[in-house]
Amino acid sequence: LGVIDIEAPSALLAVSGADIVLIAVPVAATEATFKAIKHLVTPQMLIMDVGSTKRDVIDAARRALREQVGSFVPAHPIAGREVAGVEHADADLYSGKQVILTPIERTLTVQLQKAVDVWSALGCRVVKMSPEAHDAAFAAVSHLPHLLSFALMNAISGQAHGKDYLSLAGPGFRDFTRIAAGDPKVWRDIMLSNREELLAQSKIFQRNLQALELMIASSNGDALEELIEQASQTRANWRMSQNQK
Amino acid sequence: LGVIDIEAPSALLAVSGADIVLIAVPVAATEATFKAIKHLVTPQMLIMDVGSTKRDVIDAARRALREQVGSFVPAHPIAGREVAGVEHADADLYSGKQVILTPIERTLTVQLQKAVDVWSALGCRVVKMSPEAHDAAFAAVSHLPHLLSFALMNAISGQAHGKDYLSLAGPGFRDFTRIAAGDPKVWRDIMLSNREELLAQSKIFQRNLQALELMIASSNGDALEELIEQASQTRANWRMSQNQK
Repeated sequence: LGVIDIEAPSALLAVSGADIVLIAVPVAATEATFKAIKHLVTPQMLIMDVGSTKRDVIDAARRALREQVGSFVPAHPIAGREVAGVEHADADLYSGKQVILTPIERTLTVQLQKAVDVWSALGCRVVKMSPEAHDAAFAAVSHLPHLLSFALMNAISGQAHGKDYLSLAGPGFRDFTRIAAGDPKVWRDIMLSNREELLAQSKIFQRNLQALELMIASSNGDALEELIEQASQTRANWRMSQNQK
Repeated sequence: LGVIDIEAPSALLAVSGADIVLIAVPVAATEATFKAIKHLVTPQMLIMDVGSTKRDVIDAARRALREQVGSFVPAHPIAGREVAGVEHADADLYSGKQVILTPIERTLTVQLQKAVDVWSALGCRVVKMSPEAHDAAFAAVSHLPHLLSFALMNAISGQAHGKDYLSLAGPGFRDFTRIAAGDPKVWRDIMLSNREELLAQSKIFQRNLQALELMIASSNGDALEELIEQASQTRANWRMSQNQK
């Protein structure tokens, strides 16, 4: 088990003869990585990714791995940090977290079961769903929040008094913007590869934002409170359901 | 020193003869609270609030306290939790946090100094600014993030598959939406009382969101990465400046 740089010649040596190959690269680099290792893939090998989008990764796997695509089990562990690098490694990162597997019709049963076993052994709860359902869900609960967080940082820093404003920001701002520190290349790829779902979610979000704005602009306190109450209740219910997991 | 319910008859007994009166009520309830205690205010008494908006609270103080408005020092401690009630009390809540004081021309020097001393003793860094500068800054770094967080929760929960989506949400979503659990009455009042600044910030935000959307829709990876890089860098710089405080 080791962390390897796929661009280094030693990477192919590491893949050769491995039982499990876990590909952790920005989504757009997945296809080139598959191509680089294709000639080393054996029928016993389990190949997985950890990408935040699944349809595009599967398309890349079909194109690059061809008849060996059955050895690939698309995976998305729902855990991560906004900081990168081995120096931020955390042995408990996956413990108690979900991992989503999105097998396709050609995925081999043996490899899928091995994937379930590996992630379970790391302490993950394994969930299986279609790549389409995955990408729609994560557009809403992950890619959109990142987009909003990026937009907020730019909105503030672009203002004449932006620096002064930032110096006053407190713990609520800290938590809300933690995900804005994400890696630009990783997030560029995720947003481009899940474009349609993300833009659709952003439109739904803006409709809801504008509904709130309308209540504020018209001083409709009762309707505003109702919308906030709904949001607050949804968040509280979500938190409770998380605690029960 | 005690926590009192201003609607209880004992509240007025507690205010009577107190050195310091700290009013912690939803912003819209401030004026009624001032009126209820006005006849008990002495020249030595320091009255403060903890409201998230300052111009409206000062207007209320001018109207209700009249010639005694000099005893009132408008205060906003930048610390808080999304949960309410004495059972969630935290003795270290203010330690190392900022508190903003927004005195007006009629604020008495003695009271202002006493306010600085009290918050400093709690471990706060005291910052003084005008009520206008306060409200503009907090529209950007606090009220807008809350508005966005509420809108996101409603956007997801209003969808047919919203519950399924929420069940997949991870730590990034958890942090981003923590502030969505805020008290609906408190946040209704804040948003209505800081309406103009908040709506202006929301417009700036939407322009920045739409700039990102445009890069995504047109698959302009370089420009998209640049916008994300800018956001990520602003967040990293902000975090560093916080650590140095």
